Amino acid sequence: MARWGAAMTMAMGVLLGAGPALAEARDVGAKAYDSVDPFIGTGGEGHTFPGATVPFGMVQLSPDTRIQPRAQGYDWAAGYRYDDSSIVGFSHTHFSGAGHSDLGDVLLMPVTGPEKLERGDPDTPGSGYTSRFRHDDEIARPGYYAVTLDDYRVRAELTASARVGVHRYTFPADEDARVLLDLRTSMYDYPGKILWSRLRQMPDGTVTGFRETRGWAPGRQLYFAMRFSRPPTGHAFHNTETDIAYKGFAPPADRVPGERAQIEGRQLVGTFDFGKLDAPLVVKVAISSVDEAGAIANLDAEVPDFDFDRVHAAAKAKWIDALSVLDVEAPDAERRSAYTALYHTLLGPTLFMDADGRYRGPDQAVHTAEAFDHYSTFSLWDTYRALHPLLTIVQPEKRNADFVNSLLAHRRHSPYGILPVWSFHGQETWTMIGYHAVPVIADAYLKGIRGFDAEEALDAMVASASYGPYDGLRQYMELGWVPIDEEGEAASKTLEYAYGDWTIARMAQAMHRDEVARDFDARAANWRNAFDAQTGFMRAKNRDGSFRTPFDPTASGYGTDYTEGNAWQYSWYVPHDVAGLVAAHGGADALLGKLDAAFEAEVDPAIFEHMEDITGLIGWYAHGNEPSHHVAYLYAYAGQPWRTQARLKQIMDTQYADRPDGLAGNDDLGQMSAWYLFTALGFYPVAPGSGEYVIGRPFLPRASLRLPNGKRFTIVADGLEQGHGYIGAATLDGKPLERAFLRHEEILAGGELRFTMQAEPSRAWPGTQAQAPYSMTATSAR
Amino acid sequence: MARWGAAMTMAMGVLLGAGPALAEARDVGAKAYDSVDPFIGTGGEGHTFPGATVPFGMVQLSPDTRIQPRAQGYDWAAGYRYDDSSIVGFSHTHFSGAGHSDLGDVLLMPVTGPEKLERGDPDTPGSGYTSRFRHDDEIARPGYYAVTLDDYRVRAELTASARVGVHRYTFPADEDARVLLDLRTSMYDYPGKILWSRLRQMPDGTVTGFRETRGWAPGRQLYFAMRFSRPPTGHAFHNTETDIAYKGFAPPADRVPGERAQIEGRQLVGTFDFGKLDAPLVVKVAISSVDEAGAIANLDAEVPDFDFDRVHAAAKAKWIDALSVLDVEAPDAERRSAYTALYHTLLGPTLFMDADGRYRGPDQAVHTAEAFDHYSTFSLWDTYRALHPLLTIVQPEKRNADFVNSLLAHRRHSPYGILPVWSFHGQETWTMIGYHAVPVIADAYLKGIRGFDAEEALDAMVASASYGPYDGLRQYMELGWVPIDEEGEAASKTLEYAYGDWTIARMAQAMHRDEVARDFDARAANWRNAFDAQTGFMRAKNRDGSFRTPFDPTASGYGTDYTEGNAWQYSWYVPHDVAGLVAAHGGADALLGKLDAAFEAEVDPAIFEHMEDITGLIGWYAHGNEPSHHVAYLYAYAGQPWRTQARLKQIMDTQYADRPDGLAGNDDLGQMSAWYLFTALGFYPVAPGSGEYVIGRPFLPRASLRLPNGKRFTIVADGLEQGHGYIGAATLDGKPLERAFLRHEEILAGGELRFTMQAEPSRAWPGTQAQAPYSMTATSAR
Repeated sequence: MARWGAAMTMAMGVLLGAGPALAEARDVGAKAYDSVDPFIGTGGEGHTFPGATVPFGMVQLSPDTRIQPRAQGYDWAAGYRYDDSSIVGFSHTHFSGAGHSDLGDVLLMPVTGPEKLERGDPDTPGSGYTSRFRHDDEIARPGYYAVTLDDYRVRAELTASARVGVHRYTFPADEDARVLLDLRTSMYDYPGKILWSRLRQMPDGTVTGFRETRGWAPGRQLYFAMRFSRPPTGHAFHNTETDIAYKGFAPPADRVPGERAQIEGRQLVGTFDFGKLDAPLVVKVAISSVDEAGAIANLDAEVPDFDFDRVHAAAKAKWIDALSVLDVEAPDAERRSAYTALYHTLLGPTLFMDADGRYRGPDQAVHTAEAFDHYSTFSLWDTYRALHPLLTIVQPEKRNADFVNSLLAHRRHSPYGILPVWSFHGQETWTMIGYHAVPVIADAYLKGIRGFDAEEALDAMVASASYGPYDGLRQYMELGWVPIDEEGEAASKTLEYAYGDWTIARMAQAMHRDEVARDFDARAANWRNAFDAQTGFMRAKNRDGSFRTPFDPTASGYGTDYTEGNAWQYSWYVPHDVAGLVAAHGGADALLGKLDAAFEAEVDPAIFEHMEDITGLIGWYAHGNEPSHHVAYLYAYAGQPWRTQARLKQIMDTQYADRPDGLAGNDDLGQMSAWYLFTALGFYPVAPGSGEYVIGRPFLPRASLRLPNGKRFTIVADGLEQGHGYIGAATLDGKPLERAFLRHEEILAGGELRFTMQAEPSRAWPGTQAQAPYSMTATSAR
Repeated sequence: MARWGAAMTMAMGVLLGAGPALAEARDVGAKAYDSVDPFIGTGGEGHTFPGATVPFGMVQLSPDTRIQPRAQGYDWAAGYRYDDSSIVGFSHTHFSGAGHSDLGDVLLMPVTGPEKLERGDPDTPGSGYTSRFRHDDEIARPGYYAVTLDDYRVRAELTASARVGVHRYTFPADEDARVLLDLRTSMYDYPGKILWSRLRQMPDGTVTGFRETRGWAPGRQLYFAMRFSRPPTGHAFHNTETDIAYKGFAPPADRVPGERAQIEGRQLVGTFDFGKLDAPLVVKVAISSVDEAGAIANLDAEVPDFDFDRVHAAAKAKWIDALSVLDVEAPDAERRSAYTALYHTLLGPTLFMDADGRYRGPDQAVHTAEAFDHYSTFSLWDTYRALHPLLTIVQPEKRNADFVNSLLAHRRHSPYGILPVWSFHGQETWTMIGYHAVPVIADAYLKGIRGFDAEEALDAMVASASYGPYDGLRQYMELGWVPIDEEGEAASKTLEYAYGDWTIARMAQAMHRDEVARDFDARAANWRNAFDAQTGFMRAKNRDGSFRTPFDPTASGYGTDYTEGNAWQYSWYVPHDVAGLVAAHGGADALLGKLDAAFEAEVDPAIFEHMEDITGLIGWYAHGNEPSHHVAYLYAYAGQPWRTQARLKQIMDTQYADRPDGLAGNDDLGQMSAWYLFTALGFYPVAPGSGEYVIGRPFLPRASLRLPNGKRFTIVADGLEQGHGYIGAATLDGKPLERAFLRHEEILAGGELRFTMQAEPSRAWPGTQAQAPYSMTATSAR
């Protein structure tokens, strides 16, 4: 086992050791495990997948139900949709809740009968190798998935270790068994998406291969190695592309066993024959970003045998350990929602290195992670908000430090010299806006997480906030705003840069890098350059300082002032200076009025038809997309926490459910679920980097967190079970808590946060003399 | 300097040391250098290039005159055609004389005036960045090329080290200088040929990049690093492809200096601005098959400065050394032809490893050459015949051993477990037929060349001759012939396999691997399965043992029994058993009659219009393609050496000239030139592996070879200058030589081979009692 495996084994060792506390944790974890429903989010807009993976695992082995043309690809971004009734196959990489389609590497399908090389039309059974299935036959548990493929009478079970997907196929005894490997498919079809690919049979029967794709990430390379529990009686490699200048040599598809063979091209399919089988066939597939030798080494390191049950048991144990950090007492439905949310927050970032530490960086060169575990899949525009802050509470310090180390490694190898924007499999996708690796690092550092080079980190943050060619940054540095006549969606960019700048200033201040702190504190005030006092909205300015006209506060997305949003959604984005925002509006009442106007507007969802990400509408509030995520909490900042409490109930009731369609928007690599979990616990990090969490209201009668330092922080909500939805009083370790926020160090200290819930809103808590959070005190300078 | 450079420096040290012998060698080399005309072969069918390279260098930096659609790509296989009057740019990799188009990596063009990103139509000057030029302004010398680009008034000079191309551009002082880098071009245009590519500017101003092409070799990767002698004032990267799903981020093309940037895609162009220059701009470009870091290291190792003249002087010195092995006394035209032929034989195989020994193998993985220099570009179907045998005489033992080591390394990393068929840049192209790495290795071993693992070599040869899926080998092993009803061009394959088998048997015999020798001696007789006694032609059999009908001895190529030939051309292919062939024909007279019929047939060249490689016709004899290359020498085997002598004069007079169109066919990586050189010296290796050379007749009054062991072998042709074309008598070291062949060890022993030439054919030499060569004695068994 390699270093990562070793670390996991150590963690398991601690958990599985003797002692009543550990036994209790194991018990909590086992019950938690039973409460997770991986189908939640696989319908509707959630874009989650039901397949098998381990926490932060590199492999996500999951069924794909359709491969659509790109225009329809959005809905199948995770490969599986609960409404579908057929399965194309099982592929090894998936995003959990992304808004773009990609991955779906190395699709396997166990089949019988006449050879079919094409998927066929899922609406015409038998037209291809796709098979029907029924949900009745499906099981999805953390680290395990099973289904029966009706067209072939094959029972397929999936499990995974960190870098290896393991399949167990039980074929009908009276049919010749065959496994099809399709290297052409991905989450959507697009001509030219597969740049190059290769299939190879090694002399020892190992099948290796590679594919290079131009999808969401340009030029991504994925290598794999596959072994079968019994040798095929023959195999055939096919290239289904026809218009080829030099096709090269491919051994005839005559199914001669044992001979070496290779095929290269852009449209490859392999089939492996096994004859009639009297026992299940186990197939294991390792992936690597480095090379085929790396994939083979990963296979050997993690799954040296063909013991499916052992791999499954190990995956289950990892999940029990990871889920045991949270002990929830609540009705079943809430337990399911809470633990499934926790499950979803542990699916990314994903491990991205071979057993020997090697990985392919954004420069496409191979690097070795020295003394840290390298992760990728950073959906930073989403996850800096609540996912990464949550992981600082529910995951070990080392893992959080290694997320930072991974971001820094990306920057070291970046051809642009900057931190990732939205990266997966080591590659930059340039998706969304801002430089939100910056708040992730600042939040970690300011919470006391160490284990990375803080000086390098601050340098990387400054470099990322100073790279002129990126998204109007040169103009932002020159003018103080991104000019809309030179760069699109300029209002959103100005606002998000200003917040990122504030987090740089905070970290620099803590590190006594005073000049950096001063410079970026000045930049943090740039949000003011987006505020139009006349309309009360954030807007984009031209280079000459005038706001762009005409102005339509309902217009969203491409061509407008905003990124995946409109003026009603983006005008709240000053997480670091809510006091300034209040003042700009002329006082709390004006802001509160505008918040109500936003939540209570009558909005025809058709207005967002062109913006597939904007879902989960409550008035203009769009819970399905991240710009809204902190908005309900602003009531509390503006002095009316009971309004936050009411809005949170409204959101929790309408935007989440323990059903497949129970996520109102893309889970976005755990951000939607992290929002749920924070909100259910009773607090939320509106301004990561502040070290503060605004108190909303609890939704769980009792929840206890096992913290990374081994302490416990327990939240109790007395009266919640009677349906009381408002906080009447709160105590921290028995002492009255007369403020509407918590500090991170208070959580880390362990103890009990107890709420007295009541039926009616209370204006008495936290009281008019309540201490204000940072964001209400440190008004950014003009 | 890396190991390869070090070896070269040592060689130079020996040559440049003191001592009259060495001074003489230097003098010989310098005069030889002056006699080389790199334009020979750039017109007509030669497919050679005029640009700058060092012996066996990895970089071949040469002008490209047109980029044609694939259908017209054949004629521009080396990028340059002497008939053209415009230059597209200077690219860094070229084949010398190949029959397929590929390479042309990293094309640079120095330009002025308005930015043009497209090449334009060469027939419409000014329509793109292509420029006109005139041959008057051109200079081509070994290791140096210069031309004036008339459209830009730029003087462009090129030189090279092993892995680095160096450009010196003198711009007009009154124009803004710009260098364009086109990553889209190759020797021909084909949609999808560029699979992926990348351009990157490093913080220190180094430009790196990569391209992956699917041309002749599937999925070939080529990395490069480029530096300018003065920093650009700005640069811009362009992607000219439009239909892209996710285009990714590219810094705006606003020519801001110094900022990092990268662009990825399939159609990339970069431009680099320098403003007005008061001195020449030097640009150096290193290539690597491994990665961009490898290219940078190659650049640093070989050309650490911008001293164009130093690199040029070093290249010249390498050529003087390499050419000094041959001391020719002959009229200027023959000197030019002979030294240009020698020059052409020293252009391939080409070095293929980085300064640190790393290279990309046929498995696309990176390997390191341990204790040998790794070469690629093995046009083996051509070069096993005369090029490799020649190199055993004119190149050091280590270089020949390293060719074998490179073949063995290829096999170790081959996904098929076999030696290369036709490989370049580490990749297998599957071009032509047979397993002709086998005779190259056998010939080297049997000539006493050591420095490779002979046991491994023999195993590799056996494996290559036993890989069932390849080109009907399974059937050949089963039946003794390749059945034409199952595999195309089966007669050629059966014949070439049988010869290869014979060389395996000889090497196995020498190594006392008796079982292998017995098995392959039996296989060597399989040529008989192709001989149709009724027609006297070699033909293809069906599986049932019958010859395929109808039979047309003039039909050639695809769909016929033959590879790039017809029955008239292929029926002579039993180089290892000419005695058997004579017997099969019923005696020498029948064979001689058939030879005459072949040479004297009236053939309309239009019959070969569909076979672009079959050129240089004398009757059916096609000197432009390799199956004919040994045929004129068969008269000597059949007892009429004077007929060989006459035919050779006929061929030399009509198929070679010291003009751009002076090669009658593709030089095929030196094979045509090696034929010329052997024939001019007076002997030829009809059956490599026999250690014998059949004596033809000398065409040079005096030629002296400096052998790898330091000895000299001198050939003198008395009476040649009087126009006498027939051998009257011969002596070896003063003793009468009464046989029409030489043994390799006789050459290695040094000495003098002296011919007495006469005007009329002589039947007295070598006499009817002459000793017969191997091929006339060791009739292969039925």
